Amino acid sequence: MSDRILKLQKVILNQKLDAILVSSVPNIIYLTGFSNFSKDEREAFLLIVAQPQGLTHKTPGVLGYILTDGRYSEEVRKQVKDFELIEISSELSLEKALKNLAKKHNLKKLGFEGNSISFLEHKKLSKYFNNIYHLSISKLRSVKTPDEISKIEKACELGDKTFKYILRKIKKGVSEKEIVFEIEFFIKKQGADISFRPIVAFGKNSSVPHHFPTNNQLTNNQIVLLDFGVKLDNYCSDMTRTVFFGKATNEQRKMYETVLAAQSRAIDLLNSLFMIHDSIPAKNIDQAARDYIISQGYKTIPHSLGHGIGLEVHESPHLSPLSKDILRENMVFSIEPGIYIPGVGGVRIEDLVVLEKNGLRLLTSSPKELIEV
Amino acid sequence: MSDRILKLQKVILNQKLDAILVSSVPNIIYLTGFSNFSKDEREAFLLIVAQPQGLTHKTPGVLGYILTDGRYSEEVRKQVKDFELIEISSELSLEKALKNLAKKHNLKKLGFEGNSISFLEHKKLSKYFNNIYHLSISKLRSVKTPDEISKIEKACELGDKTFKYILRKIKKGVSEKEIVFEIEFFIKKQGADISFRPIVAFGKNSSVPHHFPTNNQLTNNQIVLLDFGVKLDNYCSDMTRTVFFGKATNEQRKMYETVLAAQSRAIDLLNSLFMIHDSIPAKNIDQAARDYIISQGYKTIPHSLGHGIGLEVHESPHLSPLSKDILRENMVFSIEPGIYIPGVGGVRIEDLVVLEKNGLRLLTSSPKELIEV
Repeated sequence: MSDRILKLQKVILNQKLDAILVSSVPNIIYLTGFSNFSKDEREAFLLIVAQPQGLTHKTPGVLGYILTDGRYSEEVRKQVKDFELIEISSELSLEKALKNLAKKHNLKKLGFEGNSISFLEHKKLSKYFNNIYHLSISKLRSVKTPDEISKIEKACELGDKTFKYILRKIKKGVSEKEIVFEIEFFIKKQGADISFRPIVAFGKNSSVPHHFPTNNQLTNNQIVLLDFGVKLDNYCSDMTRTVFFGKATNEQRKMYETVLAAQSRAIDLLNSLFMIHDSIPAKNIDQAARDYIISQGYKTIPHSLGHGIGLEVHESPHLSPLSKDILRENMVFSIEPGIYIPGVGGVRIEDLVVLEKNGLRLLTSSPKELIEV
Repeated sequence: MSDRILKLQKVILNQKLDAILVSSVPNIIYLTGFSNFSKDEREAFLLIVAQPQGLTHKTPGVLGYILTDGRYSEEVRKQVKDFELIEISSELSLEKALKNLAKKHNLKKLGFEGNSISFLEHKKLSKYFNNIYHLSISKLRSVKTPDEISKIEKACELGDKTFKYILRKIKKGVSEKEIVFEIEFFIKKQGADISFRPIVAFGKNSSVPHHFPTNNQLTNNQIVLLDFGVKLDNYCSDMTRTVFFGKATNEQRKMYETVLAAQSRAIDLLNSLFMIHDSIPAKNIDQAARDYIISQGYKTIPHSLGHGIGLEVHESPHLSPLSKDILRENMVFSIEPGIYIPGVGGVRIEDLVVLEKNGLRLLTSSPKELIEV
């Protein structure tokens, strides 16, 4: 964990801040290893104070403060060793606790996460600190350690197993909701979690990229689009496969082959660029797949080509037309072109890849030739 | 749906706004009925423009705009009839779309949800609107319609069935995680969803009010705390029962009886106050239960006594020492006192209640006498 705090200390010093308030749950997990807080409600903050005299791997003692309430304090005390717990209660409000800490450490310039802090929270913070600055620290997470890559890889492996299992459940009359249930059931039975609500779309429904599963039952010659992910040890996977129940029509076959070729083009371009450059503009990879799909007479992809993944299912880097993100060694992200025709259907193929010293490596290994179940 | 828009129009007119930007997913569901957007990422906004000439139930045409991207537009077009769809894409950014609408309707004063809009989003909005004002519209949801109460009731019924089912799964050697899995499995098998990640705590773990389930296996004479909820038709339930595997010790029995008595006191007070008053300060009910628990020699409840529930599992009104919320007819909320002793264990009992014309009605009907499995 202390490597990560070191990275954050560099940010604090570079930005000439006295402290950073960390509020987003993935960043709290990243810095403390404690993953019990809910993402739906504000349940904790970290306050990390600048150590201008320099922090080393062997710096003893407290790396910062963790502010949470009585529902979590016992578990935090047990599990989070590097942070000093400050328990928020009706006697000690968050505001008061921050005020105390500001006084204790003479904090004047506070950094906060501009994406995570709400307008009203910001308003309160401004009362207690003279100077507050928004910044994004989530990008610290975009380059992964070998340990993180290995965790994502394990999540992907379980994703591949889930796909294999689900293929056997694709039968006439089964509903989209039932397939979603089977995906969740299989993943949770292995002690893992889903990284997002699975998308299962039959037939015409597959033309909606984020289709919400219904009770629609599978009939002959329908597209089956499956987009799901595993969360294992806090790290996410994400994959999409599109298969055909019965025989694919010529139109469907052409869509499939075009999406697959678009994905190959993006992967090949990335691979060849990465051989000669350390850093590749993410939008160039997006463009390669997008242009190919348009060149084949289809509409553009109505979403990004891909996204980084780790503690969050969508994180930096973003592969999209307007992205300014740069792809570098040890980043993990998805490549997921798609073609969607309302009234007809949609095809999407999604794999995770990691950029490693020796080149690009696919983390998803489910087959990609056209499957007719 | 139009009743709800009427309520919102009143807010718009009272606050002398030209429009309101709605960003929180539960409020989007409340106003449109469309529930497919993810809560984890920003995927849509509503813009509702003031209708100063008055809006009636029969006002024809568009009630506002729904701004979302290509992943959702096909489904939105099908399902959301009252709102005009504006599709956000790399050609039409959200900023540009808002700018266009501001110009079209000559919008000067915009209201937004201060709790939901992030600091950075607010910064962008300020560029496009001269005057922007934060407000909370979530409280519009705290008084429920009969239809909403009936939906919550159905979720509670499935919760009660789940509890009955789970009692049969409480066996020596079963792990907390396995019980969580069984709860989810049972609820999802009925076509419903869980309203939050279930809390299952055995033995000493039950002293952590929001314990994160582990692989710990059940042994004789342990407390089993079960806190879970159902989401059915977008509406949530929430219940907690604490049972004993084997024989409850005298200490455990005293804790249980004290929590149950604290709950009864809160319910009885609420009931008797509601007979003579239309509106009851929520903090008074919290205090009744809290004071009783302290009077019996225990520490105060380390959380609120209760919370409103509906489209969100935690919403207004809040029953806590510092709450300014008022309890009124047709509000639905939880009453959930607890005693937690680190190293020993915890007991919590939670029911949902609704305040109706004829008095308070319990929506949870699982037994509350001390159960030894």
